[in-house]
Amino acid sequence: MNDAPTPSESPRGWRYAGVRSGVRSEGRDTALLVSDRPCAAAARVTTNLAKAPCVHRARAATPGDDLRAIVVVSGCANALAGAPGKAADDALAASVGAALGVDPRTVLTATTGIVGVPLPVSRVEAALPSAVAALASDPEAAAGAILTTDTRPKSASATVDVDGVAARLHVMGKGAGMIHPNMATMLAFVTTDLALTPAAADRVLGPAVSRSFNRISVDGDTSCNDMVMLLANGASGAPLLDVGDPRLEAVEVALTGLLIDIAKKIAADGEGASHLIAVTVTGAGSEAEAHAAARGVARSNLVKAAVFGSDPNWGRIAVAAGQHLAELGSAANPDRWRIAICGVPVFALGAPVPFSAPEVSAALKAPEVGIALDLGDGAAAATAWGCDLSYDYVRINAEYHT
Amino acid sequence: MNDAPTPSESPRGWRYAGVRSGVRSEGRDTALLVSDRPCAAAARVTTNLAKAPCVHRARAATPGDDLRAIVVVSGCANALAGAPGKAADDALAASVGAALGVDPRTVLTATTGIVGVPLPVSRVEAALPSAVAALASDPEAAAGAILTTDTRPKSASATVDVDGVAARLHVMGKGAGMIHPNMATMLAFVTTDLALTPAAADRVLGPAVSRSFNRISVDGDTSCNDMVMLLANGASGAPLLDVGDPRLEAVEVALTGLLIDIAKKIAADGEGASHLIAVTVTGAGSEAEAHAAARGVARSNLVKAAVFGSDPNWGRIAVAAGQHLAELGSAANPDRWRIAICGVPVFALGAPVPFSAPEVSAALKAPEVGIALDLGDGAAAATAWGCDLSYDYVRINAEYHT
Repeated sequence: MNDAPTPSESPRGWRYAGVRSGVRSEGRDTALLVSDRPCAAAARVTTNLAKAPCVHRARAATPGDDLRAIVVVSGCANALAGAPGKAADDALAASVGAALGVDPRTVLTATTGIVGVPLPVSRVEAALPSAVAALASDPEAAAGAILTTDTRPKSASATVDVDGVAARLHVMGKGAGMIHPNMATMLAFVTTDLALTPAAADRVLGPAVSRSFNRISVDGDTSCNDMVMLLANGASGAPLLDVGDPRLEAVEVALTGLLIDIAKKIAADGEGASHLIAVTVTGAGSEAEAHAAARGVARSNLVKAAVFGSDPNWGRIAVAAGQHLAELGSAANPDRWRIAICGVPVFALGAPVPFSAPEVSAALKAPEVGIALDLGDGAAAATAWGCDLSYDYVRINAEYHT
Repeated sequence: MNDAPTPSESPRGWRYAGVRSGVRSEGRDTALLVSDRPCAAAARVTTNLAKAPCVHRARAATPGDDLRAIVVVSGCANALAGAPGKAADDALAASVGAALGVDPRTVLTATTGIVGVPLPVSRVEAALPSAVAALASDPEAAAGAILTTDTRPKSASATVDVDGVAARLHVMGKGAGMIHPNMATMLAFVTTDLALTPAAADRVLGPAVSRSFNRISVDGDTSCNDMVMLLANGASGAPLLDVGDPRLEAVEVALTGLLIDIAKKIAADGEGASHLIAVTVTGAGSEAEAHAAARGVARSNLVKAAVFGSDPNWGRIAVAAGQHLAELGSAANPDRWRIAICGVPVFALGAPVPFSAPEVSAALKAPEVGIALDLGDGAAAATAWGCDLSYDYVRINAEYHT
């Protein structure tokens, strides 16, 4: 898995571009991802009731078998903007279809940025000729053009062997670390030259998303625009994989690894974040319990503030887990729990374990902080990722004005 | 309803004391609430799986008909402290029972403060003679002794007429505004000279708590020690009220008003808080939907940070509501929603409404900020309260060290 694939490693039959159209106040803000042939496509989108038009488009078009392109515009979410927002999304797809010479219904859209304002689609239309001219096999410029308040691009790639044929996957993502409605949202786009049926694409994307993006939290808020798309064009020449094919497992494993990689990069680049927090729960009675406890700890403001302050405050960990397990109706018992911070046991079987607070406090200054909780009940486990809560988080979100 | 009742307005047959025993680093930290006769008692306690011994004691003793006293110790939560914590709670009840000359099983305990350390019960025992000597009808000293990081005491009182007999209710509460496990937790104690059966006490407490304390949030975290107790001693001479008695409704209304008053004071005194945020949801299809949307908006970090920054960011309100309604499986549709901030319409029927941002920003600087969301679906409504997210919240929770 490489962060910056060289052009030769990029998926075959895919071309990418990232240009400036002026929707964002500065920098490249418009990305095109184009396949030279129809793709099987799957998507996972925000569960929020407030969905941007691009999310409705993705839901209607996937799973599908004839998708050709994705256009991503950064700087304007085009969400909660009424009928003008819906019209702008339609116009965007139509213009991109015309510029590429493909049916607009085969174009997926993704927008991110300020809420409540319709996309100034004419600016994107004016930039489309230069975007089409810039299309090339290197995804780097596109990965940079989808960002908002992110401090760095996030991409990863992998190769999967299918009966001796190498197929490539590339993923670009963004979050600003922040899963929030205003100047950022979580987006990820997987392009691959694997040959998948739409059902198979959908089948591998679901579990991969649930083990990656559904296990990160910056502030517990979801947005109108969150989405993850997977488009497979078959250009590798690998055999077509359908649901039930045992060879699909290797695809799911590779895809999950890529998405976890991007998810961790999103959490680590959270607004104001100085630490990636990895919470691993083991010994759970079910995966749902492990997941709830891990996410609950990762999203607790008190745990996040403690990590920011390098404070080995295990009580907050136990209490966050206890709250979220209780909400699930769990019968987990703290008298069986064990907690470790940065590998140091701090709580066992219902009572504190003596430890060197200065030593653990020093360990908490590392860029990645590990919190481990064993529930003493069963064999299920889950990991969730978050980031610390800093003065900069408050500054960014209080001082950013609509 | 008065914030500081004079002694003559306090419930009959009740005496209170607040003294220093040295569990907290400074100030009064030990409160006694004592009835001169057995009380009907009800309680609502934290749903967190991690429960302090005092919470288990309250669960075992309520509803009950022979309770005599409550002891509250501030500075040590006596939670997640293993067998020594359980022994300390038993010793506390036994010592208070002996000091008051009552059965220890009629003594309820409440502890709040640092987690993971057993209560230094000998310090409290040494202070008990002075606490007993200080018992008087004025609840003020006790209300001050239950605080941790709160900046001010929180109390309220009311009188209810039952067939021409005046009965009194008094409530003291604490929170540090913060519903969190380390240096604070939410506690409230209602003492009254009403005559209630234990079942009636339980019956009125439940709805009152669900409309008050269950609708405030400082940071979304619950603690090991949260509890609300209601003890009724009948000393007013009012007739005994049982479940099903129509006269109970006036009691429930008065109690709900008192608890909402304390809940709002807790939210307004949240750690680092500079604004109380009141979120009112109307037009909901069910009370559950109204409640979920109101709580979801009140606890959103992004909404809280926007209020701190006086930013009329209605997108964050819509998106927080959309997320929490979706989690409930609601079919609410943003195309029917209306949002107002400080009384100014900002969003209607799926699209933004033009408004003066400087004017709303100026209104957001008031100590109490109102957010209104109408879902356009039905007749159900709910209000939730929260506070803003400030630099001081991060400072208090990052710099407080275990």
